[in-house]
Amino acid sequence: MTNKGLSTDSYKGVRDFYPEEMAVQSYIFAVWADTAESFGFERYDASILEPSELYKSKGAENEEMVNEQTYTFIDRGNREVTLRPEMTPTVARMVAGRRRELSYPIRWYSIPNLFRYERPQKGRLREHYQLNCDIFGADHFSVDVEVISLAYHIFLNFGATPNMFEIRINNRKEMTEIYNTFGIADTETQTKITRLNDKFRKITKDEYKNELRKIVDDKKIVEQIYHILSIGDNESENPVLKGLLELGIKNVRVDRSLARGFDYYTGTIFEIFDVSGENNRSMLGGGRYDNLTALFGGEPITGIGFGFGDVTMHDFLETHGLLTSNITAPTLVILPTDAKHNMEAQKIAQAFRDSDISVTVDCSNKKLGKKISDAVDAFVSYVLILGDDEIKTKKYSVKNLGEKSEQAGTLTELIAKLSS
Amino acid sequence: MTNKGLSTDSYKGVRDFYPEEMAVQSYIFAVWADTAESFGFERYDASILEPSELYKSKGAENEEMVNEQTYTFIDRGNREVTLRPEMTPTVARMVAGRRRELSYPIRWYSIPNLFRYERPQKGRLREHYQLNCDIFGADHFSVDVEVISLAYHIFLNFGATPNMFEIRINNRKEMTEIYNTFGIADTETQTKITRLNDKFRKITKDEYKNELRKIVDDKKIVEQIYHILSIGDNESENPVLKGLLELGIKNVRVDRSLARGFDYYTGTIFEIFDVSGENNRSMLGGGRYDNLTALFGGEPITGIGFGFGDVTMHDFLETHGLLTSNITAPTLVILPTDAKHNMEAQKIAQAFRDSDISVTVDCSNKKLGKKISDAVDAFVSYVLILGDDEIKTKKYSVKNLGEKSEQAGTLTELIAKLSS
Repeated sequence: MTNKGLSTDSYKGVRDFYPEEMAVQSYIFAVWADTAESFGFERYDASILEPSELYKSKGAENEEMVNEQTYTFIDRGNREVTLRPEMTPTVARMVAGRRRELSYPIRWYSIPNLFRYERPQKGRLREHYQLNCDIFGADHFSVDVEVISLAYHIFLNFGATPNMFEIRINNRKEMTEIYNTFGIADTETQTKITRLNDKFRKITKDEYKNELRKIVDDKKIVEQIYHILSIGDNESENPVLKGLLELGIKNVRVDRSLARGFDYYTGTIFEIFDVSGENNRSMLGGGRYDNLTALFGGEPITGIGFGFGDVTMHDFLETHGLLTSNITAPTLVILPTDAKHNMEAQKIAQAFRDSDISVTVDCSNKKLGKKISDAVDAFVSYVLILGDDEIKTKKYSVKNLGEKSEQAGTLTELIAKLSS
Repeated sequence: MTNKGLSTDSYKGVRDFYPEEMAVQSYIFAVWADTAESFGFERYDASILEPSELYKSKGAENEEMVNEQTYTFIDRGNREVTLRPEMTPTVARMVAGRRRELSYPIRWYSIPNLFRYERPQKGRLREHYQLNCDIFGADHFSVDVEVISLAYHIFLNFGATPNMFEIRINNRKEMTEIYNTFGIADTETQTKITRLNDKFRKITKDEYKNELRKIVDDKKIVEQIYHILSIGDNESENPVLKGLLELGIKNVRVDRSLARGFDYYTGTIFEIFDVSGENNRSMLGGGRYDNLTALFGGEPITGIGFGFGDVTMHDFLETHGLLTSNITAPTLVILPTDAKHNMEAQKIAQAFRDSDISVTVDCSNKKLGKKISDAVDAFVSYVLILGDDEIKTKKYSVKNLGEKSEQAGTLTELIAKLSS
């Protein structure tokens, strides 16, 4: 903020990414992209502007959500437009749009920015980024294993160890079977229990049981359901669990209390939890859906996917000390002792660049001592001081600021040394 | 489009990036980023949401522009918010916000998406991306040379040769001197001429002279100004021209007709033109401004920068045959002959991934022949067919689809071969 003139603040609830913050953001995006691509996922994207119908079409409840929790406005062509609050409707629209040309299974990922109109608070900004990974057109359980394995390897590729996080899985179909064994057969009651289970970790044992009694009026069954939900299970016959164990992924268990809010899940559902003391919470979640493209007509296309937010990722890395500083300084800075050498400095700079060394020129009017200390502060690796002698003799010397060592030679010699 | 259900079209005037289009986009962004970073530029970003004041503050003309040509709406907190139409006001806001902490000169770049509310037409979408590069806090002419040299090297790094494009430079101060020699000293008249010059290439010689006569009522001076504007000059004493020639950049000339629309330029201005027959037009432009952060108060900060749109870049690359196909297929696809081998395929896939080979599993129910032809269509390099024999013997064979050759061995042997 300056004292006069326009405010330099950003819009409320969004972030400016200065180079030091952008470096962290770029690092997170790069690990996300590299991991997804190592699994053969292809990147896609779309505009943040979407027709509002895309979010409203599922009835009154959605319409309320769109009106109250999204950025929605009418454009001058009288079209209602929404800044996308999630990527799933967009990817469903795109898959449906080319459903006949695509060769399944398709593996797609994206790192969209998403917008929600809500009160800004820690970890809940009005704009955030989210990695989205989905596989469409394959329903073998090994695909569920693959998607969860991809999520697991993201953590490993950031340097995390399996003891820092835990994968919890459940299956909507298996839950239905469990309810059936208790004689709870109608879908409506099952949906009510699923929605209650979504609050399982947030309310007390007694509160849960009381609420469940209102849905299932049988004390014994309530006790039995509570018992099933409260134990972790890593010896289940669940094929996805077995598949993950087979791949050597051991920080995983079946958790029958895992519900996931959305109604559209139909099979495997999963979340990954941070197990650190301070930050024990769900970081990412996903699941299998049978027909996400239903909205657009045509044959059903099955899919499974997950979303992972940048703020959550950042918090996890910070909590576990995995965020090393990400410096984007050039390798070399050339320091002319006088402005009359600035052009010669530009020429030398380009010679280094032509050998893939990033280099810049300190063309400010600062004194040499200040130029050197600025280079140190910016974590530059090398400096080359360019004065009358260097220009006359065409011999230069490059200082390694970290090792406090120095190498002298012709331009060709020094380029060869820095390239190696 | 499907025949029933919701439309699968995107919002009007914006683009969906399916994997094949996204691969091109990612390639363009990567060359932009790599080139900027080779010059020691650091990346920054901000939200697309900005307070509308940022664009309105320069008076009625700007207010009209904001109201008519941007996406502007009132949020529920009664704040007026605009989807950024350009990045310059944002970067000025960010620099002003940390003006005291920053160590000058700073070199910043960004690849923002920008929004304009206008009739969609070729190359003029409602949302596009633009590389923005700026150097703040240094006014030596060698900095102007550096920024133009960066723009030049972007073209070279895409494989362009200097005969495909031309750099044209001018200088607002030098133009003022020229007008002064003709006795045209008042700023208002000079500004009128600058605005007329902005149309120099779009109107006929006679139209230009007639218009100029309305501003300068002296036939001889009109002829002399026209002459100066109509000749290219690459032997000028302009120091930026000389600097570029010194760096070996020869496809450059001073062009006195170059005006650049914006009033805020104060020194060097430049544009780069595509010189191909079909597509002879300005592709990028920029210049030096003395006090872009003035809006926010405080001491003036000088700067120079340019913007370069993704659509323009794409058109240039396409026109000159520089867009090679950008395939994002995994290196290897494992093809289980039966679904019962899918999990074993996942295990083998992970072993390859652990050695940095991107790999996926075709877990569909297609016949083997179809799986192979799909892999060929997707430009996959290698396939590994996994059947009963392979699982029993633990010997596998990897087919190179391009060379139509085959290598057999244990998993360890094949990983070693594909890694090398």
